Amino acid sequence: MEVVDVLHMNGGIGDASYASNSLVQKMVILLAKPITEEAITELYTRLFPKSICIADLGCSSGPNTFLAVSELIKDVEKKCKSLGHKSPEYQIYLNDLPSNDFNTIFKSLPSFQKSFAEQMGSGFGHCFFTGVPGSFYGRLFPNKSLHFVHSSYSVMWLSRVPDLEEVNKGNIYLSSTSPLSVISSYLKQFQRDFTTFLQCRAEELVPGGVMVLTFLGRKSEDHSGKESGYVWELLARALNELVSEGQIEGEQLDCFNIPQYTPSPAEVKYFVEEEGSFSITRLEATTIHWTAYDHDHDHVTGHHHAFKDGGYSVSNCMRAVAEPLLVSHFGEAIMDEVFRKYREILTDCMTKEKTEFINVTVSMTRRV
Amino acid sequence: MEVVDVLHMNGGIGDASYASNSLVQKMVILLAKPITEEAITELYTRLFPKSICIADLGCSSGPNTFLAVSELIKDVEKKCKSLGHKSPEYQIYLNDLPSNDFNTIFKSLPSFQKSFAEQMGSGFGHCFFTGVPGSFYGRLFPNKSLHFVHSSYSVMWLSRVPDLEEVNKGNIYLSSTSPLSVISSYLKQFQRDFTTFLQCRAEELVPGGVMVLTFLGRKSEDHSGKESGYVWELLARALNELVSEGQIEGEQLDCFNIPQYTPSPAEVKYFVEEEGSFSITRLEATTIHWTAYDHDHDHVTGHHHAFKDGGYSVSNCMRAVAEPLLVSHFGEAIMDEVFRKYREILTDCMTKEKTEFINVTVSMTRRV
Repeated sequence: MEVVDVLHMNGGIGDASYASNSLVQKMVILLAKPITEEAITELYTRLFPKSICIADLGCSSGPNTFLAVSELIKDVEKKCKSLGHKSPEYQIYLNDLPSNDFNTIFKSLPSFQKSFAEQMGSGFGHCFFTGVPGSFYGRLFPNKSLHFVHSSYSVMWLSRVPDLEEVNKGNIYLSSTSPLSVISSYLKQFQRDFTTFLQCRAEELVPGGVMVLTFLGRKSEDHSGKESGYVWELLARALNELVSEGQIEGEQLDCFNIPQYTPSPAEVKYFVEEEGSFSITRLEATTIHWTAYDHDHDHVTGHHHAFKDGGYSVSNCMRAVAEPLLVSHFGEAIMDEVFRKYREILTDCMTKEKTEFINVTVSMTRRV
Repeated sequence: MEVVDVLHMNGGIGDASYASNSLVQKMVILLAKPITEEAITELYTRLFPKSICIADLGCSSGPNTFLAVSELIKDVEKKCKSLGHKSPEYQIYLNDLPSNDFNTIFKSLPSFQKSFAEQMGSGFGHCFFTGVPGSFYGRLFPNKSLHFVHSSYSVMWLSRVPDLEEVNKGNIYLSSTSPLSVISSYLKQFQRDFTTFLQCRAEELVPGGVMVLTFLGRKSEDHSGKESGYVWELLARALNELVSEGQIEGEQLDCFNIPQYTPSPAEVKYFVEEEGSFSITRLEATTIHWTAYDHDHDHVTGHHHAFKDGGYSVSNCMRAVAEPLLVSHFGEAIMDEVFRKYREILTDCMTKEKTEFINVTVSMTRRV
């Protein structure tokens, strides 16, 4: 299985699409806002580019596609106004794998551009959007062509499922029952991929250029906590139930592993420093609690954030993210059943115990 | 009707798709090759960019999408080799309207890139592809960001159907029976659109940057000849037959006009000079004869070229190009019937009389 061929969010705008199920990712982008705003404002006041080139890597297809970049543009415009500057030109590169639904993005672009320009008011500079299909584990842009790189909830996806020496029995990701050699294989794959990612971006960013990445990550140094891998652990529980019902072969489950790694802040720091092209400005981990849905909007206090939901949003969101991967391994027919069980399990957990996930956000500057 | 919403080639890769029916456009690109090769080679040897930015405007979705730009890259590589230079980086912008099928382009990109890199051999520089959705009658790229602009069979499409003072009775484009005021409205719309096009590109090209455009055009100064408008005249004939059969309302046909203008070389020259940002290097008109299909490949001699076909390729090609426009006006249901009649009429014409169409190709340099 080539990850580049099957890893994409569900396309279109229907009920199962990523476009309709990306609330969690939206909250994640907004939570990282203090760091991204600081980073792009600092970049702008240091370099004053007449034409500012911004890339969003793993833009997906949905309302969040324009969210991250439009927040960045607003930050620059605010700074421009406060300095009495003329608005720069914006060159926006939206990147995702070639299987991403770019048509849906492009069709919504004219109306987005119109309403965004109105919102920005008179004096707002040209804003050019381009789509860049390809894996960010390879070069995507010319040498020294970017000022700012943003990526949210994308760089924890690996380029491939690691080669495992032992079976990761009953699991689809790292958990407390995963063999040590499996954990080590995952970590090595992440190191290889993340280092490649940093090397490519180091060539593409101008000297002094800035990058802000947000990962689904973890706080503890081991993989046994009920943190980021937990959404996968609960999905594994649903798949195991289907094995015991005879609807899925046990061997089929044993050889299915998710090509994702949720790093700790310490791991991110270590790999960035080892690669050497970037200096870290900020590195933060944030805990997000999921709580049972109470018809209220999401609630944010200090560094603990609550995402209120009865399992519905989270299971739909995970379906939009993981379905193409699961379909390629287990087939289309079983999907409704998998996600019916998954939602039950999620809802049950959320009422019984404290459930949470961790964001790791890092901002860094390309060394001159 | 907004042209930007309905003007696009048939998407996908099926029987009626543009991807499967773009032989004529392929021939047109290859016919312009001497001019494009001269233009990009001259540009490269004059500016020696380390990273060369090339835009193809109206790239559509099909085999020709990569044809034009890959020929341009080959030309530069050939020149590099002959000069003993290191290969530059290529930044390729593929532009079309937001309704173009970019997903199909992007999905075929990895295999194209792989085979193209193999063909180019070792030492071939990075080649980055991006999709740029939007109308070329507006700004698409940052200031002074392009070295070379190419566009084949696109700039004769107008931004809108001209406002007509009189009914263009029985016609869907300019013909010998079109009122003078209709011809004048079309010409004014072309002038407005083409001037806007030149102004936008003048801002986007670096000083000394180069542009090569190929139009479906005409040689004579009037619109009565059996040249470029002829494919539309025959389509009008098919639609008129459906009116006399009562399958289409006469009024419905009267208010349908194609948003296209086929300029003469003199018109192109005049409007380029009047806009003032570019100096023309070459301006050529080429006649292409359609001849009855004889199971041979297309045949090229001097400045007269023959496209051998029994009406099948031309009618399918026109269907791939015009169907979305026709569907938006006449509805989906009648399409098979329209194009069945159209093919009959085409085939009949091609056996009875000399049929031809005219390419106008112009290369020009952005004044410093």
